[in-house]
Amino acid sequence: MKTVEEMKRIPAQSLCFFSLVIMLVNVADAQQADWYPSEWGPDDRRGAANRLTPAKVLSAAKLIAAGEVYELGRTYEQGMPLFGTRHYSLRVPVMSGPLGDNEVTWHMSVISGQMGQISTQFDGLGHIGIGDLSYNGLSRHDFVTPEGLTSLGVEEVDPIVTRGVLIDVAAYKGVELLDGGYEISEADLRGALDRQDLQISSGDVALIHTGWGSLWMTDNDRFNANAPGIGMEAAQFLVDQEIVMVGSDTWGTEVLPNPDPSQVFPVHQLLIAKHGIFNMENLATELLVDDKAYEFLFVYAPLPLKGAPGAPGNPVAIR
Amino acid sequence: MKTVEEMKRIPAQSLCFFSLVIMLVNVADAQQADWYPSEWGPDDRRGAANRLTPAKVLSAAKLIAAGEVYELGRTYEQGMPLFGTRHYSLRVPVMSGPLGDNEVTWHMSVISGQMGQISTQFDGLGHIGIGDLSYNGLSRHDFVTPEGLTSLGVEEVDPIVTRGVLIDVAAYKGVELLDGGYEISEADLRGALDRQDLQISSGDVALIHTGWGSLWMTDNDRFNANAPGIGMEAAQFLVDQEIVMVGSDTWGTEVLPNPDPSQVFPVHQLLIAKHGIFNMENLATELLVDDKAYEFLFVYAPLPLKGAPGAPGNPVAIR
Amino acid sequence: MKTVEEMKRIPAQSLCFFSLVIMLVNVADAQQADWYPSEWGPDDRRGAANRLTPAKVLSAAKLIAAGEVYELGRTYEQGMPLFGTRHYSLRVPVMSGPLGDNEVTWHMSVISGQMGQISTQFDGLGHIGIGDLSYNGLSRHDFVTPEGLTSLGVEEVDPIVTRGVLIDVAAYKGVELLDGGYEISEADLRGALDRQDLQISSGDVALIHTGWGSLWMTDNDRFNANAPGIGMEAAQFLVDQEIVMVGSDTWGTEVLPNPDPSQVFPVHQLLIAKHGIFNMENLATELLVDDKAYEFLFVYAPLPLKGAPGAPGNPVAIR
Amino acid sequence: MKTVEEMKRIPAQSLCFFSLVIMLVNVADAQQADWYPSEWGPDDRRGAANRLTPAKVLSAAKLIAAGEVYELGRTYEQGMPLFGTRHYSLRVPVMSGPLGDNEVTWHMSVISGQMGQISTQFDGLGHIGIGDLSYNGLSRHDFVTPEGLTSLGVEEVDPIVTRGVLIDVAAYKGVELLDGGYEISEADLRGALDRQDLQISSGDVALIHTGWGSLWMTDNDRFNANAPGIGMEAAQFLVDQEIVMVGSDTWGTEVLPNPDPSQVFPVHQLLIAKHGIFNMENLATELLVDDKAYEFLFVYAPLPLKGAPGAPGNPVAIR
Repeated sequence: MKTVEEMKRIPAQSLCFFSLVIMLVNVADAQQADWYPSEWGPDDRRGAANRLTPAKVLSAAKLIAAGEVYELGRTYEQGMPLFGTRHYSLRVPVMSGPLGDNEVTWHMSVISGQMGQISTQFDGLGHIGIGDLSYNGLSRHDFVTPEGLTSLGVEEVDPIVTRGVLIDVAAYKGVELLDGGYEISEADLRGALDRQDLQISSGDVALIHTGWGSLWMTDNDRFNANAPGIGMEAAQFLVDQEIVMVGSDTWGTEVLPNPDPSQVFPVHQLLIAKHGIFNMENLATELLVDDKAYEFLFVYAPLPLKGAPGAPGNPVAIR
Repeated sequence: MKTVEEMKRIPAQSLCFFSLVIMLVNVADAQQADWYPSEWGPDDRRGAANRLTPAKVLSAAKLIAAGEVYELGRTYEQGMPLFGTRHYSLRVPVMSGPLGDNEVTWHMSVISGQMGQISTQFDGLGHIGIGDLSYNGLSRHDFVTPEGLTSLGVEEVDPIVTRGVLIDVAAYKGVELLDGGYEISEADLRGALDRQDLQISSGDVALIHTGWGSLWMTDNDRFNANAPGIGMEAAQFLVDQEIVMVGSDTWGTEVLPNPDPSQVFPVHQLLIAKHGIFNMENLATELLVDDKAYEFLFVYAPLPLKGAPGAPGNPVAIR
Repeated sequence: MKTVEEMKRIPAQSLCFFSLVIMLVNVADAQQADWYPSEWGPDDRRGAANRLTPAKVLSAAKLIAAGEVYELGRTYEQGMPLFGTRHYSLRVPVMSGPLGDNEVTWHMSVISGQMGQISTQFDGLGHIGIGDLSYNGLSRHDFVTPEGLTSLGVEEVDPIVTRGVLIDVAAYKGVELLDGGYEISEADLRGALDRQDLQISSGDVALIHTGWGSLWMTDNDRFNANAPGIGMEAAQFLVDQEIVMVGSDTWGTEVLPNPDPSQVFPVHQLLIAKHGIFNMENLATELLVDDKAYEFLFVYAPLPLKGAPGAPGNPVAIR
Repeated sequence: MKTVEEMKRIPAQSLCFFSLVIMLVNVADAQQADWYPSEWGPDDRRGAANRLTPAKVLSAAKLIAAGEVYELGRTYEQGMPLFGTRHYSLRVPVMSGPLGDNEVTWHMSVISGQMGQISTQFDGLGHIGIGDLSYNGLSRHDFVTPEGLTSLGVEEVDPIVTRGVLIDVAAYKGVELLDGGYEISEADLRGALDRQDLQISSGDVALIHTGWGSLWMTDNDRFNANAPGIGMEAAQFLVDQEIVMVGSDTWGTEVLPNPDPSQVFPVHQLLIAKHGIFNMENLATELLVDDKAYEFLFVYAPLPLKGAPGAPGNPVAIR
């Protein structure tokens, strides 16, 4: 579809214009057949959250055995790594009060920034597209407006309460942190799971520990320069495991840059657009690693910012 | 207390200086004796979160029997009730991409507003003071800066994972919603709990349903004009029950205005400043009421906005 | 061009697809012939600012005879009329200092909003398009990015220092304020100028007083509901007079809604996109009216916000 | 002074109360005698703008002889030097339209930042204090609120239309740019004026060229590290010349750091708080230097942000 749109930049005098139109329409048809409608039907907007069921909640809740709680979100603060020209600003206005005989005083804050695309961030189904098309083939020209997405916004996402599995790939590879640009393979995921004697099951959240988070606010330039992460093969493995969400301690979850230089964020497309699987970045997975907390009840409900393609957050792991 | 702090600037040669110091210190002593140091010692910054223990988590997790999940946060959106001149703005920048042969496209959002004091909001221990003093006697002149609180910010708050109890006062009083300005008494809380055959235990989160939330975005003027809520007596009852946090479906949790016109937000002071008990406002308690979901595992970790006195959020109830 | 882009929504199976392509390409060619390149050549980005010359400045400066200065910008403040969901927020952070033996203290402000599209506002050449095309035929797909316009941004606009002429249409029509929706005609402009014994000359700024500004912050609902203003005929007259900028005391300068219900802001298109003539809205023209200050040196340089399609401002009239 | 204000809260029954009042009032008297009320009386809020008169405008307008216009504001953009944690963000929301048969399209921007304390910036009389006191002895506890200054805000400032004088100190010292931390003396100002065969007269705006602006966006770290500028002696000379405003091509106008390490921004206090003289920073003075444009009509009206202590802007020099 996008290619059809882009035709406007093609010189009209081109001799091959008509045949181009034919070709592009065919391509569009072919693409549609490939990845939508979704497995939950053409009208579905929930994506992999369809896998969240009461039975899954009950089964995950059984993982709570120690009463331990882990906070997986990073702090939003001055000095954190920011991508490109994104910003975050918090100011406390002049202190208020006292009022009343009880002399009440109070303080507030005013914030601006790309909440949902900085620090710990959740990618909703409207965040990523393949050309003009997002999850289930919705055209961004139909649902993306200046004031928010009219569909696929994070306020529509169900609370993600399910089994969470930490996959410590760094430990499996015997390093503190994987190299920037290292592509985590299916074998790596399988090997790390074997090492932890665990399996992923349908409806899980899979969190991948690369060690990259140790650079957070200690070496922001290196943190942002590139990142280890899953490639297309590992992503397809996770798709096949029927996860609800993937997450990691890097800013992109997927390997960056992609080893195939012609591809830009293809894993995001595979997971989010094609399979309705959510993604969460910049998670504090090291807390889980320290305690070998490999499975747990994972709880996260996106901040319901109407029409936002992503959300900030502070997920909790309980075991 | 403020005058004590400011004394440093008074010329030391003043003949009256010593007697002044004595006077002010006496005033300070008198006040201090009243409500600080906290029961967790003078250096405590966690407040009632000290009551969150692994044992409490384990006991609360046992409440998960149906696998049902409730999202208790309200949507942040244009048209929601805002207090005074607070604002909320979300815009989606020009759509990005396509990049790469895979034609990746993406969308973001940019947000500004008093996040933490609009829609569903969590009051941290640095939000409220008695004169210049906040929880544990910290002077706001010592910890409140233009760029954030240097202590008592919401990023220091432990994830609140504990038993949640819904107290349906509206049902107890036989109304859809309580009147604006109605003061919920200790007897009301006791009566409502009896009706539900429940008790509050130490470390619980107590959520109060007044029905006021039915006015959210249906009658914003009435919603903001005043509110039903707990008075000092009921608040003291909750303090005595050793709760961790109180919450409700109104914008202030406490009765507004206070029946004693000389008092402005005294319940906030009692709970937050004097007893380190958190507060959460504008919760979607009606979802729990509909299902008579009166006890549950409550899970909420404040968005860790460094130095913020409050946080937005979307708590989850699981049962 | 836009229509070509829109083709993507046309069912590919349409029998008339090929002929449609041919038709649209022809339409695009026809449109191009109509209104671009600009009279200053295809590469021009200055628009009517080309009419600003040293000679014009010298001639306009001769209008300074009384030493009187008028501030034409409205205050940016809480409670002003805002269009749609635009917002404006100013907060003063916690007071800073004292620092040093000299005890310096200071105060700042933090602002968010649609600066450039609220209160007094200047429309740059990148603000308005005809389909996808802006001034001189630039496609918005080529110069509008999430982080700003890469061409036609207000930072490229020359300071507008020239003769200003106030046209008091309200007085000519014998009313305090024109009716909402009243279309100011060429005859009205000519009549008002005759009444003032003035003529517009090439390179002037023409400010139109409708009286509508008396509703500013006194009746915001009425102010925003519609507005008197120039129609296409009057706008063409101003084009023919070779003005640099038009301005008024309404939020749109042009009549709103347009008497032809099929047309939305056509005057903006005529002036800005087709003729490179700037526009300024919500000006405090009543100050000029009160003193019958009908011609003056007009001075305004847009706040140079890189890549912004519009700018806030506070123009000055000197005579 | 603050203690005087705070006294109201001290229990009146205190035995020491009367002597305390006497002591503090004496301190206040001593300070007051020093620098306020202003020379325009105790109720004045205009400060040195009182020197702006029609006669001054007329005399300055005579400087327009070439019809040349200079834009003195720097662009607000990503990558400009920002002090501390101040920020500036501009985003263009998703493109709007087309609407109507005329297919109107439009673009906007949404901005956040410390407008008034970034890039080119104007310091109003409420920006700086000596302890708690600002211009004319106003206590900041009386006029600084979270939502803006209730007095001395930039919206109250008269348009500054007067003679502008450029003082090229760098040229006088024979350098491209003065050293960071170099204190411009009275002799430097007198020498530079002599070299240019000019004198300052009452009501002028004095712009000082240090050459420091050449580091803007070319070496931001050096630009922000320190700065050349006027010291107390030179500032007193400008006070004695009865200027309305000082400005320069640095971020502070005054020498930074002050050669006396116990003093922090004392020149700001002398000019703004004690003498009601405005200040403007980060001006593009190099444009004037290039043309030896040493005197001109200076035109600037602060963006009328209600209650703001400072304003952004783009002043114009005309000659």
